[in-house]
Amino acid sequence: MTIDRLMKTLPAMVLVWALLGGAGGVSAADLGDLQTVGSWDQAAHGIWRAQLGDMTGELRYSDLAAAPPKMDVLNQLPEARFPFDPNTITYRVSPDHRVLVRIPTDPNETLYGFGLQLDGIKKSRKVMTLNVDHWSRGGGRTHAPVPFYLSSRGYGIFFNTARFLKIYNQVGNRKDSQRNPPEVDRNPPLDEPQPGPWLALPPGDAVEAQINGEGLELMVFAGNHLLEVVQRYNLFHGGGALPPLWGLGFWHRVHAQFNADQVREELAEFKRRDFPIDVIGLEPGWMTKSYPCTFEWQHKRFPDPAGFTQELLAQGIRLNLWENPYISKQSRLYQSMYPLSGSHLVWLGLVPDYTLPEARRLLTEQHHQDHIRIGISGYKIDEVDGYDFWLWPDHATFPSGISAEAMRQSYGLLMQNMLNTDLFKKRNVRTYGLVRAGNGGASGYPFVIYSDAYDHGEYLTGISTSSLCGILWTPEARSARSDREWLNRMQTACFSAMAQLNAWSSGRKPWSDASVTDAVREAIQWRMRLLPYWYTAFADYHHRGIPPLRAMILEDGFGGGNDLRPAGRLGGGANPDTARERIEKTDQYMIGPSLLVAPFYEEQATRREVVLPKGRWYDFYSGHPVGDGETITVTSKALKDRIPLFVKEGAVIPLLSRPVNQVDQAVGHALEVRWYGKDLGRFDLYEDDAQSYDYERGESKMRRLRVVRVEGGGYDLEESVEGDEAISLFGPVERFRVMTE
Amino acid sequence: MTIDRLMKTLPAMVLVWALLGGAGGVSAADLGDLQTVGSWDQAAHGIWRAQLGDMTGELRYSDLAAAPPKMDVLNQLPEARFPFDPNTITYRVSPDHRVLVRIPTDPNETLYGFGLQLDGIKKSRKVMTLNVDHWSRGGGRTHAPVPFYLSSRGYGIFFNTARFLKIYNQVGNRKDSQRNPPEVDRNPPLDEPQPGPWLALPPGDAVEAQINGEGLELMVFAGNHLLEVVQRYNLFHGGGALPPLWGLGFWHRVHAQFNADQVREELAEFKRRDFPIDVIGLEPGWMTKSYPCTFEWQHKRFPDPAGFTQELLAQGIRLNLWENPYISKQSRLYQSMYPLSGSHLVWLGLVPDYTLPEARRLLTEQHHQDHIRIGISGYKIDEVDGYDFWLWPDHATFPSGISAEAMRQSYGLLMQNMLNTDLFKKRNVRTYGLVRAGNGGASGYPFVIYSDAYDHGEYLTGISTSSLCGILWTPEARSARSDREWLNRMQTACFSAMAQLNAWSSGRKPWSDASVTDAVREAIQWRMRLLPYWYTAFADYHHRGIPPLRAMILEDGFGGGNDLRPAGRLGGGANPDTARERIEKTDQYMIGPSLLVAPFYEEQATRREVVLPKGRWYDFYSGHPVGDGETITVTSKALKDRIPLFVKEGAVIPLLSRPVNQVDQAVGHALEVRWYGKDLGRFDLYEDDAQSYDYERGESKMRRLRVVRVEGGGYDLEESVEGDEAISLFGPVERFRVMTE
Repeated sequence: MTIDRLMKTLPAMVLVWALLGGAGGVSAADLGDLQTVGSWDQAAHGIWRAQLGDMTGELRYSDLAAAPPKMDVLNQLPEARFPFDPNTITYRVSPDHRVLVRIPTDPNETLYGFGLQLDGIKKSRKVMTLNVDHWSRGGGRTHAPVPFYLSSRGYGIFFNTARFLKIYNQVGNRKDSQRNPPEVDRNPPLDEPQPGPWLALPPGDAVEAQINGEGLELMVFAGNHLLEVVQRYNLFHGGGALPPLWGLGFWHRVHAQFNADQVREELAEFKRRDFPIDVIGLEPGWMTKSYPCTFEWQHKRFPDPAGFTQELLAQGIRLNLWENPYISKQSRLYQSMYPLSGSHLVWLGLVPDYTLPEARRLLTEQHHQDHIRIGISGYKIDEVDGYDFWLWPDHATFPSGISAEAMRQSYGLLMQNMLNTDLFKKRNVRTYGLVRAGNGGASGYPFVIYSDAYDHGEYLTGISTSSLCGILWTPEARSARSDREWLNRMQTACFSAMAQLNAWSSGRKPWSDASVTDAVREAIQWRMRLLPYWYTAFADYHHRGIPPLRAMILEDGFGGGNDLRPAGRLGGGANPDTARERIEKTDQYMIGPSLLVAPFYEEQATRREVVLPKGRWYDFYSGHPVGDGETITVTSKALKDRIPLFVKEGAVIPLLSRPVNQVDQAVGHALEVRWYGKDLGRFDLYEDDAQSYDYERGESKMRRLRVVRVEGGGYDLEESVEGDEAISLFGPVERFRVMTE
Repeated sequence: MTIDRLMKTLPAMVLVWALLGGAGGVSAADLGDLQTVGSWDQAAHGIWRAQLGDMTGELRYSDLAAAPPKMDVLNQLPEARFPFDPNTITYRVSPDHRVLVRIPTDPNETLYGFGLQLDGIKKSRKVMTLNVDHWSRGGGRTHAPVPFYLSSRGYGIFFNTARFLKIYNQVGNRKDSQRNPPEVDRNPPLDEPQPGPWLALPPGDAVEAQINGEGLELMVFAGNHLLEVVQRYNLFHGGGALPPLWGLGFWHRVHAQFNADQVREELAEFKRRDFPIDVIGLEPGWMTKSYPCTFEWQHKRFPDPAGFTQELLAQGIRLNLWENPYISKQSRLYQSMYPLSGSHLVWLGLVPDYTLPEARRLLTEQHHQDHIRIGISGYKIDEVDGYDFWLWPDHATFPSGISAEAMRQSYGLLMQNMLNTDLFKKRNVRTYGLVRAGNGGASGYPFVIYSDAYDHGEYLTGISTSSLCGILWTPEARSARSDREWLNRMQTACFSAMAQLNAWSSGRKPWSDASVTDAVREAIQWRMRLLPYWYTAFADYHHRGIPPLRAMILEDGFGGGNDLRPAGRLGGGANPDTARERIEKTDQYMIGPSLLVAPFYEEQATRREVVLPKGRWYDFYSGHPVGDGETITVTSKALKDRIPLFVKEGAVIPLLSRPVNQVDQAVGHALEVRWYGKDLGRFDLYEDDAQSYDYERGESKMRRLRVVRVEGGGYDLEESVEGDEAISLFGPVERFRVMTE
């Protein structure tokens, strides 16, 4: 019997078993394997952390954040206690280089998040592998698999480690748990009483997560409601990104083969057709070689890069350059970068170890020399996700000693860190760009994630899920099978963190579908008119940690809203059912404080339902009341082919008094201020120079717009200013509109 | 800049980097990380192994094999040299509990195998994670992810470790490789010359595989052709399984809710309708509770298990019992098994650590007492695969100290090992059964793998892929959307390792589609008539390592067949293109030495192409020539609704002279022997008692059937006997048919 042979090879194991009491009885072996987290360190107000195992040499996402924690703002948030008994969290550090942590959950506790997930916001009762990947459906792999989740009980857990994380969310039952469901017979005889229905997946009572590594930092974020938990997460990572104002204009990426003249023609066509345009994205063809990359101009297409860039800037157009980080033999960086790069190539290019200061210096100096110096505004960083077969293998090595997996989990972050910090911020210039991978702690980076995925419903879900974890996401438009789809996609893009048409492959234009050209133009015009509102939404992200686009579950009064069960001991909770009411609806979302967006998409191309949170809501365009905490149906016909937009009771919304075709024209432009409903609302309009980091030195101001009742009847808008009065971004309020009669 | 903070946490890493020469230059850091395998141990004739790292405490699949290597047979195989320069294989054992191995490949080398893979037999240029799993498409996860591959250059590599294996098959390029393809610009200007087309996936030049563990055993199997490589693999693991003859009859699994009377009625219906039946499978309802299981009879359904079992045996019917290994609180084993089981439950049942002798004793004694003693013939072992969410988590612990992943990789093997060895073989009784997970070294186990998957094309692919790695597989029939599909599926099932209709859920019968009932009956009858041929095919599996069902790539003259490039140094090979000719066709396969089966399926429901290997081939039914090395088209109409069967030149095929409805009737039954083509062929018909292990003591015989030319014209069959003449399984040759005129 060869099993005997096996047993002979395992003396050490059996010894361990015996030592653990395995031979003796039930409890010792089973409970002895986990220990309570001994001490929690209060990292900030409402934020605690514990290091499990040895963190020396382990990479934490928070170390890659754009800025240090905003302690001042954190300290002003409401009181928040540790959300449950900290002794219930247990862990194990194994001699075989693994760390396990166990966080008990309540039976009806629902978990949300885990990064940019395109397949849904609710992640209870799932097993996930949180690896950076080119989008794959389900299983947790995605462009930004942020190991941060929100609990319906009102807290967040962050696994602050750049290791691959395998996580069992309320899946699995320990044999020594006192909270396992009862056994049920699957095929009982008819007269056999059963304790309940047989369940294919018995509910688990914890989150259990494991890494291969020496140590793991666990962070707990408290909050009196879910939004506050998210705020704490963002503020701890330096606050959200504040893009330059031009970043919020309209973006168009031209075909990969375009040369300078073709770009010029394309821009002329935008002007001729009266379409807004702010940023032109150049795809790989601008380079002498890609993939892998040289980062050097292909002079056959762009004979005078500096002249061309300046020519466009003079027209108010910024240039954004596609690149991937992998370095061609033809690049002048190749020789110096060779020893600073990993063991394996990607797309045959060197994979620089950008944790090494010298590697960062080489790249950013070249980028400054060839791009920034002549006026390039930013980058689109491609291929930092890439499945298993497009990235370095898990066994690759890097000169700094960082593991291949940590490098994979953080490469997108490292690129953002390097380009934002070493290239732009160092020169007091803001950038806004794209990247195809992010991860934990990314809140402060002015990069939006994009994907090769192209399901419109998934794109909407991405808006919701990204809002929970400090990630920005663009549901860019690329192509469509019908006029209607084109319009719907362009509308969604215009109501996202980056309004982009990406025509690198399709060669498509905003006006490619004649029958919806005017409606598409109008969508972009609304984007432009709402720039004051958008900019403040991003300022709130930066200064207060409130995401500019938000999942409905973060909204007051939405499907249970903030009716969180009181924090307390796990296993308690007198009324677990309130948590169940929370609706995981991801085809509508919030922008800024007051706007609810519910795009038409897929089968809901011209007619869809919208779930309104509690409180009175109004149609954005007409100011008419539409409902209060109910589900309504909207049609494109009634909306005259505009995107469904709803506004919350009392909302005050600043916008440009007229559409503009460029962000630069928004600067100094007169405002219209709309007021919805009956409550006397207010809006704090944020302004700074919208392009530099001078706001960090206080160079910003807040225009406080407040609706007031006028003596003798009627309403008016009062404006007062706080902060640096020398600042001037938008023009004066030209028009105050009472939208609801 | 927080990156500085990161760097401060990495002094140890940077030190390692410096020591490795990373700071100094190009080569040291890159080549220094891998070392040549120092010594190869010749495990048997044409088989070598090397231990990389520390194997103490690591579980090897070969330790779980059914029997020790068949050294005598191995030593009789033709001379086979180490297939390439052993110094080209390199590896690395990392301090972080990882072992990497690198095996260079030629640019045109094709890799096949990696276990039961339903998505194709060719596995070149793929990244795979070889984890036991409920079938998932692609990525390597499957019921039997055997870490064994065949190379078109004529060798096999076996990773003899029960760890999860992540393998990069010719994917990935080391920066220090001298064999990387040239860089190509993806978007060159029109006048820019390019060295070739841009490739989305640049070809790699090696297989690189990594485990998390302390050591890995690597085995190399040589061979003069691919079949010989497979033979060595099977023989090293004790030779293939030799089922009892009854196992090759017709199996029918009744509905999960059936009781004894319903089984009796079902059997009567088989008899009434003149359908063969040998084995009845009872599904979960036979037990007092499942899932989890008690393994104890549900007396409300089966009031007298012993009487019932004996009653069926008296009719020649064997009973096979469904079970999963997870133990219910209601089982009398629960208390004793608790300390011998893992930290986590599956389906709320204990997961016994069956590497522990005491756990094995408890289960097999109960099984003997309740099942075997009364005449139960075997088991269907369910749920040993189970995705991530139906099995124990990767961080579960087991009392023996075996890791959760090794337990997952080997649990199906352990169950087979325990039941086959401790329960049946110990009592000198053969069994045949089903299991839902297998892995390396399984060749000798009389268990077939089945799946919840149900794509007919994938099922056929499974027949081919399982044949490369010592796995048996049943493409069982369960249901169908049309008469034709039902017929096609039943035909495939009858020409597989287990002819089974699994009606546990559908309640279907062989005669459920009236219009094809006769054709279905005929398919089963051919199964029965061919029993002598089948039994010898399995004997060849056991004694010579030749799989009874075989992928076409193992067949002489098929798409390049054995035109392997000569073994030699990697990078050599004057004519790499011959390897390319090998056709990875998996919708047809071989049974035994001479039969080619090409089932109708899916879109090819009534008409399909068949690729014939080189050499003359004949229609099985008529003996007519059909072609030689060409692609032919066959139709169900021309075949009168029979499954397409072709026979190779000179083949001699023994079958029962008439159909029988039970295997027991085949014993002693007269034979018909068919001869095809013109070459004077032969067939060595194997016989033993077909139920015990007495053959291991030499109690078997070989009936040598040889076609001879008769003096004066015509042909006859000569028979001579070798071995134990007292053995008698089948009857005398009653009829010799010259099939080809």
